[in-house]
Amino acid sequence: AFQYNQLAQYVDEHQEEYVEALRDWVAVESDSSNVLRRPELHRMMEMVAQKLQQMGGAVESVDVGDQELPDRQTLALPKVVTARFGSDPNKHTLCVYGHVDVQPAKLEDGWATEPFNLTEINGNLYGRGASDNKAPVLAWMHAVEKDNGVLPVDQALPVNVKFIIEGMEETGSNGLEAMILAQKDTFFSDVDYIVVSDCGWLSRRPAITYGTRGNCYFLAEVHGPKQDLHSGVYGGTVIEPMIDLIGILDTLISPSGKILIPGIQEAVAPLSDDEWRMYQDIEFDVDDYKNKIGVSRLMYSNKVDLLAHKWRYPTVSIHGIEGAFSDPGTKTVIPSKVCAKFSIRQVPNMDPTVVEKKVSDHLHSVFSKRQSPNTLKVSMVIGAKPWLADIHHPLFEAGKAAIKRVFSVDPDFIREGGTIPISRTFQDVTGKSIIMLPIGGFDDGLHSQNEKMSRYNYIEGTKLFIAFLNELSQITEAAV
Amino acid sequence: AFQYNQLAQYVDEHQEEYVEALRDWVAVESDSSNVLRRPELHRMMEMVAQKLQQMGGAVESVDVGDQELPDRQTLALPKVVTARFGSDPNKHTLCVYGHVDVQPAKLEDGWATEPFNLTEINGNLYGRGASDNKAPVLAWMHAVEKDNGVLPVDQALPVNVKFIIEGMEETGSNGLEAMILAQKDTFFSDVDYIVVSDCGWLSRRPAITYGTRGNCYFLAEVHGPKQDLHSGVYGGTVIEPMIDLIGILDTLISPSGKILIPGIQEAVAPLSDDEWRMYQDIEFDVDDYKNKIGVSRLMYSNKVDLLAHKWRYPTVSIHGIEGAFSDPGTKTVIPSKVCAKFSIRQVPNMDPTVVEKKVSDHLHSVFSKRQSPNTLKVSMVIGAKPWLADIHHPLFEAGKAAIKRVFSVDPDFIREGGTIPISRTFQDVTGKSIIMLPIGGFDDGLHSQNEKMSRYNYIEGTKLFIAFLNELSQITEAAV
Ligand SMILES: [Zn+2]
Ligand SMILES: [Zn+2]
Ligand SMILES: [Zn+2]
Ligand SMILES: [Zn+2]
Repeated sequence: AFQYNQLAQYVDEHQEEYVEALRDWVAVESDSSNVLRRPELHRMMEMVAQKLQQMGGAVESVDVGDQELPDRQTLALPKVVTARFGSDPNKHTLCVYGHVDVQPAKLEDGWATEPFNLTEINGNLYGRGASDNKAPVLAWMHAVEKDNGVLPVDQALPVNVKFIIEGMEETGSNGLEAMILAQKDTFFSDVDYIVVSDCGWLSRRPAITYGTRGNCYFLAEVHGPKQDLHSGVYGGTVIEPMIDLIGILDTLISPSGKILIPGIQEAVAPLSDDEWRMYQDIEFDVDDYKNKIGVSRLMYSNKVDLLAHKWRYPTVSIHGIEGAFSDPGTKTVIPSKVCAKFSIRQVPNMDPTVVEKKVSDHLHSVFSKRQSPNTLKVSMVIGAKPWLADIHHPLFEAGKAAIKRVFSVDPDFIREGGTIPISRTFQDVTGKSIIMLPIGGFDDGLHSQNEKMSRYNYIEGTKLFIAFLNELSQITEAAV
Repeated sequence: AFQYNQLAQYVDEHQEEYVEALRDWVAVESDSSNVLRRPELHRMMEMVAQKLQQMGGAVESVDVGDQELPDRQTLALPKVVTARFGSDPNKHTLCVYGHVDVQPAKLEDGWATEPFNLTEINGNLYGRGASDNKAPVLAWMHAVEKDNGVLPVDQALPVNVKFIIEGMEETGSNGLEAMILAQKDTFFSDVDYIVVSDCGWLSRRPAITYGTRGNCYFLAEVHGPKQDLHSGVYGGTVIEPMIDLIGILDTLISPSGKILIPGIQEAVAPLSDDEWRMYQDIEFDVDDYKNKIGVSRLMYSNKVDLLAHKWRYPTVSIHGIEGAFSDPGTKTVIPSKVCAKFSIRQVPNMDPTVVEKKVSDHLHSVFSKRQSPNTLKVSMVIGAKPWLADIHHPLFEAGKAAIKRVFSVDPDFIREGGTIPISRTFQDVTGKSIIMLPIGGFDDGLHSQNEKMSRYNYIEGTKLFIAFLNELSQITEAAV
């Protein structure tokens, strides 16, 4: 029988070890977007494989090939690590997905502590990757750990558990989709459910995530003179690529948040009355959200509009411009080649292929009106679809019951504005049901300075995963 | 009597030494815009002082105080080095201005050779600062060098020569104006003429420069959320500073080069018929210029329009954006604080103080129309006036005669699109006449990748300065 209290106590008693394990992982600068950090990333994957092996799993490090760099060089992708715990045909099989690569971080960006040195302040564990996604991955491992001293794993695990841990999530999960496709009839053949814990709650109330936005990430590159020019010597005689680029970027979205690219907004599924009512009931404090961000006004002032635009409407973000002068100081340069990076979040029923064409057509059309001698190249480098699940599926009932057991409250059913493209891929390729069961806090600062995971969420999250495994085992075949 | 041929031969024979001297100077990364390079810059100024001392000059290293950094820290400015050679009251006194700080340069920016390792390829000496302004400064030193073995300097120098060499030109000559004001009645009291050789020819024909554009350099900073945000999690709910910034930058200048800020274009002196005719006669190959830049079309297709917009009309250049994502890769960030850098070239009769107000008013006006909760701060960090001289002054006749002697051609009288603000300051403070006598080539790539100085221009330029000193001594008091 499932002995929740005993297991919970065990977790509490071992929390220092869990924090130390997180410290070791955060210390590895596994930034997948920086090719110079690739050796760190390979080391991170080895640490994952090693840990799963020590836990007694059947581990494989799967080579997923090379990454093509813009200069036509190639670079080995980090291996994808898979593991299996248990293979009882009478039990359900859960597959846990996670990633151990992280976003870039530098102390100078405004971190209060060294980003790769886990630092605890007031119960928060600060460090790049702490919440996204290293602590949740570790929590899953601790939840199935063989030598947890309570019960031998083969008996203890109420379901078979598989892991699939990757190292390229932050840059588009290169190689993973092909690997999932290739292992559809092997590794995934006996998988019943997939769980992803790569997101956070919306408030202090625990939550289950049933949808994510997709993302189309674009590069818009304007080429002009063959090299950078002195703005004094050449200014006024050349058509500056930077001015062309700013001109076309200014046609993407209005000051009030309306996407100006023809054909984008039209594809969005309308907000239903049910959805509206559901959003009304969700625990979400608009003022808290506003204060946390530190702005005097948000794009929308009421909860429903705000949640809807966070979760189920597209938006355009302009991230920056490569090739222009971005350092401190006062360089008087006319950059010869500038590349803007922007992205459009995807929601049902948008289609990245269509979005790619609409954006490219639109930008080329406004660019050609400028009659510039410079050249424009538009490319979509990430095209991730949105994902949406049915919250009445038994998988979600199991999550709800587990939350109720650990936290004594009902969860909020929420969506995620960010993109976890792999959810959609899992769904499309395996046809299995996916649940997103977050343990990160609402204020963890993912992709931002001072990312953290609270000790509370990390430890209670571990208990939640243990409880969830038990709930899963209760699902009857008929219900699925 | 002036023995030009003997001196020219001496210069030819010593050219290897001159190139080695340039190599030593280029090796010092005296980038004044990078505070981390400040020690190199101090070292550079010491090398200048040492060389002038070895030449037998009366040298002073003048402390010009501290630089205020954005974070309210201060940093010692590089000393300004002055020197005097000769003090015969019966001779004219020429003051040579130059700078030994350089623009930033990194191999990765697209340099074919190490930027701080002088490399000779096909008669060109490649290196950051080679043409701007280290070789010209060295050429002046070689032209007055005491132990040139030909004549003892006190007899050899037909005029008294003073040097004023600074190390902050590339970032706005901080501290220099105050120093010139302070030494108006001491160092500058006996100066008759000032020469600046901080620019280049327009073609292969030697040139004398009689005007420069000024420059107003602006920062436009938009502050929003208190820290960077994940564009998936927050996109659609916040008003993004980057989008606000792009919106206002897009109102500065039209695709056809028209400045859209009210009140800027109106202040520009009209092009006179004389000027038009003068431009017509200048040696300038529009196709060469176009090909060198590597564009299929310039802003204007005829010579006069092109020269006029290079020299005597204002323009807007947008250099880049600090604070946004500018690295390679695909970071999905909403930057919380972004700062655009742009500049407006100044010509007669624009006034930087007026320009500052017009730009600030305009940007705040378009920003307020966006009704953004973010905040905008506009500041002008450089405000350099244009400079324009009378080409019929005896100083320019002397330059013309010297060019005729060394190169056997008449010079083109040209203007410089770039800014040498100190010319204007010298004129305003000392009331003396200034001439700009360039020796840099038309294709030296100032402020750009692969900056070079040709060996020919460096060596013939040294001869030109020797000849110019002689011509100067011929100017009768009455003519001035
Ligand atoms: Zn993640
Ligand atoms: Zn992430
Ligand atoms: Zn210069
Ligand atoms: Zn310069």
